[in-house]
Amino acid sequence: MVLRRPGNAPIAMSRPLKPLAVAMPESPSAVWCRRHTGELYSFETFIEAVRGFHGHAAPGLVLGGRMVHLASSALPSGILYDALCETANCLPDAIQMLTPCTIGNGWLRVEPLGRFALALFDKSTGRGLRVALDAGRLDAWPAIKAWFFKLKDKADQDAGRLMEQIRLADDGILRLQPIQVRPDALGKRSLGPRRLCAECGESYPARHGPTCRACQGHSPYLAGQATAAGWHPARPRRPAAALPEDPVGEHPISPDADEAGRGLEGGSGHPRPIRE
Amino acid sequence: MVLRRPGNAPIAMSRPLKPLAVAMPESPSAVWCRRHTGELYSFETFIEAVRGFHGHAAPGLVLGGRMVHLASSALPSGILYDALCETANCLPDAIQMLTPCTIGNGWLRVEPLGRFALALFDKSTGRGLRVALDAGRLDAWPAIKAWFFKLKDKADQDAGRLMEQIRLADDGILRLQPIQVRPDALGKRSLGPRRLCAECGESYPARHGPTCRACQGHSPYLAGQATAAGWHPARPRRPAAALPEDPVGEHPISPDADEAGRGLEGGSGHPRPIRE
Repeated sequence: MVLRRPGNAPIAMSRPLKPLAVAMPESPSAVWCRRHTGELYSFETFIEAVRGFHGHAAPGLVLGGRMVHLASSALPSGILYDALCETANCLPDAIQMLTPCTIGNGWLRVEPLGRFALALFDKSTGRGLRVALDAGRLDAWPAIKAWFFKLKDKADQDAGRLMEQIRLADDGILRLQPIQVRPDALGKRSLGPRRLCAECGESYPARHGPTCRACQGHSPYLAGQATAAGWHPARPRRPAAALPEDPVGEHPISPDADEAGRGLEGGSGHPRPIRE
Repeated sequence: MVLRRPGNAPIAMSRPLKPLAVAMPESPSAVWCRRHTGELYSFETFIEAVRGFHGHAAPGLVLGGRMVHLASSALPSGILYDALCETANCLPDAIQMLTPCTIGNGWLRVEPLGRFALALFDKSTGRGLRVALDAGRLDAWPAIKAWFFKLKDKADQDAGRLMEQIRLADDGILRLQPIQVRPDALGKRSLGPRRLCAECGESYPARHGPTCRACQGHSPYLAGQATAAGWHPARPRRPAAALPEDPVGEHPISPDADEAGRGLEGGSGHPRPIRE
C-alpha cells in the first residue's frame, strides 16, 4: 500500500462499488486496480469509473488502470511519489484517477515520448518503477495487437473482444522495471514573481521576459476575430468586467517563433504544449 | 447548460451535495459552480471536491471552478467544446473536475503561457470564451493580491481570509471575453502508425524518427542506475515479465538536445513537457 498524500474521495461511479476480497493468486482479476485511498475496482467497476472521468471506456485507460496498479503495488511502502507518463494519450487519466498525482497539482508530468508507459517514483530520490506495455507479447492477443498497432479501422474492431483480451492478458503483457529519474527532472520549479504584461496588461511570470509569452508571438488565439465576428458571450451572469476589446496576446507568430521555443531552462523561451 | 459529451459520474465528495436552488441574482454565491453533468456545487462543497481530486484546497483551483463556471454558463448551448488552459498550475484540475475535458482524452490542452486564464471553445470552429483573473482589480482584495503576486510567504498568509475573499470577490475579479482559437491549434493529431524501436525494443510513433525519442537522447531516466543500486520491485503480484536489464532509452542527453527540441511540427523533434 502506498498512500502518503492527503485527500481522497473516490471518483464516483454510477453504481456503488461492491466490496471485494483481497486478490487471491487463483483469481488474479478479482481486483483490477486500487485507488490510492484504498477503494478497490474490479475490471467492470473500473470501466464504469473510466466512463465517468474520461467520457468513454477507452481500452488504453482500462489497461492503464492495471499498469498503475502494478507499479503502485510493487513500490515500497512509505514513500511520497510523483508520476511520469510517457504519453498524453489515455494513460495520464489512469494516473489521475488512481493516484494523488494530477496535472494541476504538479505531481504528474507528461513527457511526450509516445511510449505507452508510466513511472511512479520517490519524489526526493527519483528511484521508482516503470510499467510499459510489452508490445512483443501481443501475438497471443490479436485484438489487443490490432488495436494498439492500428492494424484495423476502429469500426472493424470488436470492442467487446478487445476488452475481454485486456482482462485476460492482465499483467502478462506488461513489463515492470526499476528506474532512476534524472536529477534535473526531479522537483517542481516555482513560477517565481509575477508582473503585469506591458502589452496585454495580464499577469505572467516575470522570468518569461519583458512581455508575456502570448505577446511574444505564442498566443493560441487570433487577433480580434471573435469580436469582429460579433460573437459575444450570452449574458454573463454578473458582468462585473465589461467585455474588453483588449488584445489577449494575439500578435502574429513571429518568424523566429521556433527559435523562441528553445531555451526552456533559460526562462524566456516557450516550451511546447504536450503533443506527440 | 452546455452538456454535450457522454459520461459521467460526478467527482465524489465525502459528504453528499445538498441540492441547491438555481442561483438567484440576490444570492450570487449559492451556486459556486456546476459540473457538466449538472451537479451543483456551493463554495463549500466545491472545496471538498477539490480536496478529493487535487489533494488539498488550493485557492487557485477553488477560484478556477468559478472561472470554468463563468465560461461554461456563457457558452451558447449545443456546442461540443474543447478546453485550453494557459497555465499548468491548479487551473487544469478545475477544467477536469467540471467539464468532460481531460488531459488523457485530449479535449483539454495546456499552453504554458503562465497566465491564469482558460478558454472553452467550439471544437470545430474555434470560437469560444476566455476567462482570466483580472489582476488589476485585486486592490480591493488584499488577501487575494498577496497570494496571487506572492507578496507574503505562504506561512504568513491567512488561508481562511483568502478563501473568504475569493468567495466574496466572486466574478468581480474575473474577465470574460470572446476568443477565436487559431486554426492550426484546432483538432487532434493522430499519433499515426507505431513501430518497435531498434534500440530499446519498445513501440513508439513511427513519425518520431528511426528510434524512439527516449533513445534519441530524451529519456527522463538515468541509464542502469536503478538496477545498479540493487533496488528491485518488491514482489510484483504476478511477475509475468522478468525484470529486464534492457535500457529504457537511457542514453545521455546529446549536446544538441536543445536543437532536437525544436521541429515539433516536423515530427521527429521532441516537444517539451508542460513547464512554465
